[in-house]
Amino acid sequence: MINMTTDNEILDAHKINHGKIEMVPKVMLESKQDLSIHYTPGVAVVCNAIKNDRDLVYEYTNKGNLVGIISDGTRILGLGKIGPEAGLPVMEGKSVLFKRFGGVDAIPMCIGTTDEEEIIKFVENISPTLGGINIEDIESPKSFRIVDKLTEKLDIPVLHDDQQGTAMVILAGIINSLKLANKDIKKVKFVINGAGSAGMGVVRLLKYAGINNIIVIDTHGSIYKGRTEGMNEYKEEIADCTNPKKEKVDLKEAVKGADILIGLSKPNVFTEDLIKSMADKPIVFALANPVPEIDYETAKKAGAFIVATGRSDTPNQVNNLLGFPGIMRGLLDARAKKVTYSIIYNAALALADAVGDKLSVDYILPTLENHSESTKMFEKIAYAVAETAVNEDNSKIKDINLIKKEISRNMERNVNLHKNRII
Amino acid sequence: MINMTTDNEILDAHKINHGKIEMVPKVMLESKQDLSIHYTPGVAVVCNAIKNDRDLVYEYTNKGNLVGIISDGTRILGLGKIGPEAGLPVMEGKSVLFKRFGGVDAIPMCIGTTDEEEIIKFVENISPTLGGINIEDIESPKSFRIVDKLTEKLDIPVLHDDQQGTAMVILAGIINSLKLANKDIKKVKFVINGAGSAGMGVVRLLKYAGINNIIVIDTHGSIYKGRTEGMNEYKEEIADCTNPKKEKVDLKEAVKGADILIGLSKPNVFTEDLIKSMADKPIVFALANPVPEIDYETAKKAGAFIVATGRSDTPNQVNNLLGFPGIMRGLLDARAKKVTYSIIYNAALALADAVGDKLSVDYILPTLENHSESTKMFEKIAYAVAETAVNEDNSKIKDINLIKKEISRNMERNVNLHKNRII
Repeated sequence: MINMTTDNEILDAHKINHGKIEMVPKVMLESKQDLSIHYTPGVAVVCNAIKNDRDLVYEYTNKGNLVGIISDGTRILGLGKIGPEAGLPVMEGKSVLFKRFGGVDAIPMCIGTTDEEEIIKFVENISPTLGGINIEDIESPKSFRIVDKLTEKLDIPVLHDDQQGTAMVILAGIINSLKLANKDIKKVKFVINGAGSAGMGVVRLLKYAGINNIIVIDTHGSIYKGRTEGMNEYKEEIADCTNPKKEKVDLKEAVKGADILIGLSKPNVFTEDLIKSMADKPIVFALANPVPEIDYETAKKAGAFIVATGRSDTPNQVNNLLGFPGIMRGLLDARAKKVTYSIIYNAALALADAVGDKLSVDYILPTLENHSESTKMFEKIAYAVAETAVNEDNSKIKDINLIKKEISRNMERNVNLHKNRII
Repeated sequence: MINMTTDNEILDAHKINHGKIEMVPKVMLESKQDLSIHYTPGVAVVCNAIKNDRDLVYEYTNKGNLVGIISDGTRILGLGKIGPEAGLPVMEGKSVLFKRFGGVDAIPMCIGTTDEEEIIKFVENISPTLGGINIEDIESPKSFRIVDKLTEKLDIPVLHDDQQGTAMVILAGIINSLKLANKDIKKVKFVINGAGSAGMGVVRLLKYAGINNIIVIDTHGSIYKGRTEGMNEYKEEIADCTNPKKEKVDLKEAVKGADILIGLSKPNVFTEDLIKSMADKPIVFALANPVPEIDYETAKKAGAFIVATGRSDTPNQVNNLLGFPGIMRGLLDARAKKVTYSIIYNAALALADAVGDKLSVDYILPTLENHSESTKMFEKIAYAVAETAVNEDNSKIKDINLIKKEISRNMERNVNLHKNRII
């Protein structure tokens, strides 16, 4: 637990090797012949092959496994606009997680501009080198515009983990919660408190599933079609696909009789009374980090049937780590062209399914304690992502069996890499 | 030798692991506590520390060891403008060499624009993440403008290996050649055939050393002050600091009585007669790749005292691999702000010195056959680079002993890494 680690221990752990990642060779370079194969003059053969058929870059280079983690430092964790350098430790951490759990090579790219067009241009320019993009910790709604425009412009997948990855894990948790509550997702009422990246992702994902019985609350109250205060193009999008009765309500009124309450907002804003006002078997996801909207024990005491938070010290941690490594593995190996909500939806089903027989009110999502189980879980998610991409003609590789073989090969290589790694 | 390796073997060696590099963790990530130290919530402590003192990014992240290898794909090897994807195998090779010999983490960044201002903007934007820049295989004179402007704008070093790294190795070879010929570098006559990146680098380096008895030949003949044909700002710079008598001559006339002939041009353009027309003990560097301006045997037969080429199958290979890993190691660990020609000059002296007792007409530069010797050589070059940077107040770290300790620590860690690496 974090309480056992002092700040100085954390700083020292970062200082000992100056950070957390390094670039290493995948080939031996011991003889003159090795040199002449991997550098001049031999490498010219490979350059010419790619020059004549650009897609071969995926065969002969690491492009297909390389992801740029792009941030402008404007919304790092809960710390806000702290600049690109101060964001680097987070992005290096993300890089470690990408590799450890998905076998993905991810390069932190904390950039020196916060200008939307410049960020888009930057990503376009680096894209020939990369197999995928992960947009991270950029303030919204700028982040949405960047992701939407890049998704249109590029032929490599652009994942917005704060939006899509988080939504995927939340939906998986919701699906399993509803299974236990014996309720139909098409017949329940959702309240989402918070309209940032994750809120947007959940709304878009539920929209994809054909669900609109949702009220989204922001600092101005419920979002509804026709509201004029504090709107932007993305809140208009939310207004278009939620709140069909155009209810003008505050959080307290909205939650009355709701089946599912999702907090993506601030510490301690959910009360016991709020939980008590919900429908039977209340499902409460209090996901503010590190202090949730209501803590696990209090929510349970107030009658919640299922409580999930972002914390690792109570049951049901909603951890985006459950999503992005497998999602990206699948996107890369299918050579998907875009991230779609059908991909995110099917990834969520795969994650929900991975809980298996262990499903209970205090185990709605997998934990990552058992490495061989979690490798299998990420593999399943990657399969689901790849299958969806192939089915919607959104992949450069068309043969799903070939893709699955590549996914398994990559996951297996990665397990061996970490087993043998001497740090 | 390359002749023993078929094209298919080269392609297969690139295909087996899809390229040559990967990003791996330098930290263990096995427990929940590991996660909470290296990612949320613990990492916030590190972010805040850097937010409050930006220089701490060098302590707590890999920025200080991370180099971007930037290319726009316009001048890849001798292949010309083949595009960013086709350039990737070369840049991955360079990355492997940076790590193998200098312990430097270098990321290939082949970018999707050839526009000068966009390239500069791109590098500026990625610079918060990087400790250094290596500009690679960009067509000249655009590359000179990019390097000169970035050197002015950024507070991290921008190395132009094609220009500065190559010039450093050439100068080391020249210094040792003149030692053997018992000639004074200030009293000899240079002819340089070719005014591309490497030619420019040699001219600037000799200028730094106070030498101007040089004639540079391009496709229009000798470059001289007042020439109007085929000039640009960089050829004007060459005209300003070479050819003091403003001689209007062709290659043949220029070489008459010259002590040193350096070819940075095209295959087979030096004849036996050309060599015979030089002063006594002719020193011939025929560096066109992979086929030199004149081959080793022919030049020797024509009376050359010393012959160097870019080839590994005859003596005296002028290989830029002898330069950049040590140069960059020194730049990074001193946290040098700029690459200067005093740095490049002192690095050349260190490289020349590393030949030691083995010095002979067929051994003017070190080879890399003995790993522990070559580690020591790169370390010496890095020391020389760092000392120069400290002495000219061009380093963020001021204590040379501290820097040398860091260089040795990094070189030693790297030797162990490669010893233990299972690929």
